[in-house]
Amino acid sequence: MLPLTPVSELDPGVRDALLAAVGANRLLTGAAQREAYAWDNTGRRCVPWAVALPETREQVAGVLRVCHRAGISVVPRGAGTGCVGGGLAVQGGVILSTQRLNRIVSIRPGDRLAVVEPGVVNATLREQLALHGLFWPPDPSSARSCTIGGNLAMCSAGPNAVRYGVTRHWVLGMTVLLADGSSLRVGGYTTKGVVGYDLTQLLIGSEGTLAVVVEAILKLAPLPEARRTLRASFRDMEQAARAVAGVMSRGEPPSALEFLDPAALRLLQEHDGSMVCHPEARALLLAEVEGESDEVDRKAQVLQQRLLAFEPLEAVVAANEAESKSLWSARYALSPALTRIAPRRVNEDVVVPVTRLASLVAGLARIATETAVPIVSFGHAGNGNIHVNLLTDPGDPAQAPRVARALDRVFELVLQLEGTLSGEHGVGLMKRDYIDRELEPSSLKIQKKIKELFDPSGLLNPGKIFP
Amino acid sequence: MLPLTPVSELDPGVRDALLAAVGANRLLTGAAQREAYAWDNTGRRCVPWAVALPETREQVAGVLRVCHRAGISVVPRGAGTGCVGGGLAVQGGVILSTQRLNRIVSIRPGDRLAVVEPGVVNATLREQLALHGLFWPPDPSSARSCTIGGNLAMCSAGPNAVRYGVTRHWVLGMTVLLADGSSLRVGGYTTKGVVGYDLTQLLIGSEGTLAVVVEAILKLAPLPEARRTLRASFRDMEQAARAVAGVMSRGEPPSALEFLDPAALRLLQEHDGSMVCHPEARALLLAEVEGESDEVDRKAQVLQQRLLAFEPLEAVVAANEAESKSLWSARYALSPALTRIAPRRVNEDVVVPVTRLASLVAGLARIATETAVPIVSFGHAGNGNIHVNLLTDPGDPAQAPRVARALDRVFELVLQLEGTLSGEHGVGLMKRDYIDRELEPSSLKIQKKIKELFDPSGLLNPGKIFP
Repeated sequence: MLPLTPVSELDPGVRDALLAAVGANRLLTGAAQREAYAWDNTGRRCVPWAVALPETREQVAGVLRVCHRAGISVVPRGAGTGCVGGGLAVQGGVILSTQRLNRIVSIRPGDRLAVVEPGVVNATLREQLALHGLFWPPDPSSARSCTIGGNLAMCSAGPNAVRYGVTRHWVLGMTVLLADGSSLRVGGYTTKGVVGYDLTQLLIGSEGTLAVVVEAILKLAPLPEARRTLRASFRDMEQAARAVAGVMSRGEPPSALEFLDPAALRLLQEHDGSMVCHPEARALLLAEVEGESDEVDRKAQVLQQRLLAFEPLEAVVAANEAESKSLWSARYALSPALTRIAPRRVNEDVVVPVTRLASLVAGLARIATETAVPIVSFGHAGNGNIHVNLLTDPGDPAQAPRVARALDRVFELVLQLEGTLSGEHGVGLMKRDYIDRELEPSSLKIQKKIKELFDPSGLLNPGKIFP
Repeated sequence: MLPLTPVSELDPGVRDALLAAVGANRLLTGAAQREAYAWDNTGRRCVPWAVALPETREQVAGVLRVCHRAGISVVPRGAGTGCVGGGLAVQGGVILSTQRLNRIVSIRPGDRLAVVEPGVVNATLREQLALHGLFWPPDPSSARSCTIGGNLAMCSAGPNAVRYGVTRHWVLGMTVLLADGSSLRVGGYTTKGVVGYDLTQLLIGSEGTLAVVVEAILKLAPLPEARRTLRASFRDMEQAARAVAGVMSRGEPPSALEFLDPAALRLLQEHDGSMVCHPEARALLLAEVEGESDEVDRKAQVLQQRLLAFEPLEAVVAANEAESKSLWSARYALSPALTRIAPRRVNEDVVVPVTRLASLVAGLARIATETAVPIVSFGHAGNGNIHVNLLTDPGDPAQAPRVARALDRVFELVLQLEGTLSGEHGVGLMKRDYIDRELEPSSLKIQKKIKELFDPSGLLNPGKIFP
């Protein structure tokens, strides 16, 4: 790969070429403007040299060509809601924002597909699709601001992956631009297709290191008519974890199966007294079932019965829409609440097979005690995907060694339990130094060669994924 | 890539090394034995130099190492049920049969996964999983003989893809061996995972050209309690095609939505008088719904009503299991019946978006008339995946030019309609000269580089996929 010259300002010739490529008002070079694109959900700060806001794929190609000629790195970026620094310009260079590439090109109900540009906000697409009785399943908790392009880059799912599978299952094809600005179409408009290697799937989850998505063909699902939310309070985490494995071992999966640990529950009680759960609860499961209006109550009862078999303190179906909403708002309030308590918290999203959840939960408690690092866990239990929050400041020299030790032990535990270091956040900057613990050298070697094959100059989102 | 020496017999030194790698009784070198592995569903004949039948992954590695050193090609092969010559040793070399690598390593209901070796027969796995109330969705019509390894290599699905998606959605991870015999683990045991590029998805559908699968971790679905079959007879194909698009445009998809054209119906009448359908039917839809016992009848009625909106001659729910079975046996009798009529028939499996089905069907009729090549079509209408059978003998010099012209026009039509040349059969030998009509040069270039990256000597299943 080419070495990147670490200069702090854009060369005037390159700036003019970028201006020519995207036009005035679509290139930000002022310090304050660049600062707005220097942050993401990690709290890290990396100020780019410039921010390009193309509105057409030709403009995207122009930016890529200019940077390719100049040997300047390009960091594709959606809404900046990522959790691993994937959209940060760690080596300077140009941020390529997809925010203005935000057209819903077409919605085709009969073909159950939508064609969109990468800057479309997840929730905006959801609203438009609902008019046709359809939806695109991926539902990260940042859905109201995150973009489809970001969802594809990180393969970021959300609670409903337990029923619908992950983002990569809902993409039929894409048009992408390579580092030199050339175009590549992968996949297509059909729900089956086996002509050649599946480059669509290779590109999804590649975190903007292989290509820039300029259009995606998304597969759609029918919007369920109705939903019901259930909560089940347990005496301890292990009992709740066993209930999760039990629920997942047979029958139709719920459309969400979330859990909150004792620390998360305490936090919610402090944050919002209205969070209804059993006073003795030390673990909470939050589940959702969906279906047609006349069957959803029966489905909720079936799930309730299955939860009751694991002897919770209570298992209750939310009485109405307001009660459902309040349960989900509480769940979604957790992450911001944690950020208030520990702004630099370490937020991992490990995954283990669901039958290993009880071991994970017990192990996390041990690690918290032994390293004196408070850990709050919650997340997508139905997929074994747990958001493990270390409530510390890794930037504080007094805390850093403890945090490093705790994180080390969390990852060791997860890998022992046949798990993975990330279920939906990605690797980015934050986990790149850990992935060789999960991936064999032979796998990393092949992946690096794939990176070189797509991006020989190493200009697309450098410093990400690989150690 | 290394040139392959086209000798007709295995060098004695290599034969001894292969014997040492797999042991006696696991290497077939006799002419009659090799003949048994010279054929697949295409009717083409390619006699390998030897057939290895390893029983352990160490033996697979041994075969690969010997062939790698000797510069001999290796063709991985499951049950030989493929439709595109993917398992044929077109350049001689060694057939690596996975038939004896047929252990179901574990079934883990709580984790909804099964670990299997590649030679496990699809239907055998289905039987074992049913004991746990689970199943692995991919259901090619060859399920009773085809292997999981073959299903993964070709990403071959079947009727239920309309509800469950395709094979690649149901694989969590694999252990594969590269051309030099070295091992590579990809993916894992979890239903979410975004650490590094998704090599699992890259390998699925790569037709044995990148690596040899020795173990797969399969994601499982709950086995539906009950199923109902419906048939709807239509006056013409276009009307049936519109009904398909209508059914797919909203609501839960059926678990199968097949169609049969007039020629297929005539064939079945001749083959089996008991095939019940309306006497004036010129097109038949065969649908299946599934669910819990107490809801499946209602689901069948809902689908029936939706079909009736498209004014069929009739839309009937099968009265009982026997009637269901008879409908499905008729559907599955089609392919063998066609083989009897035209043993060298050209069997394509094109796909178009479902709203384009009516145009496809009308176009196929025009092509049949204008080229004087009889065409029989049937298949997975819910996915727009149609098996187009040209009832001719392309090996007959009198027919060959007409067949070539018809095929050319079929592919042109499919691509015009935003389709793909293959939905589940793969490219193999039969379509390699056509894929550059679907894939751009830039895509082919990258794919060839990926092939070189995994298999620099070009020894794994040479002569497949690429023109």
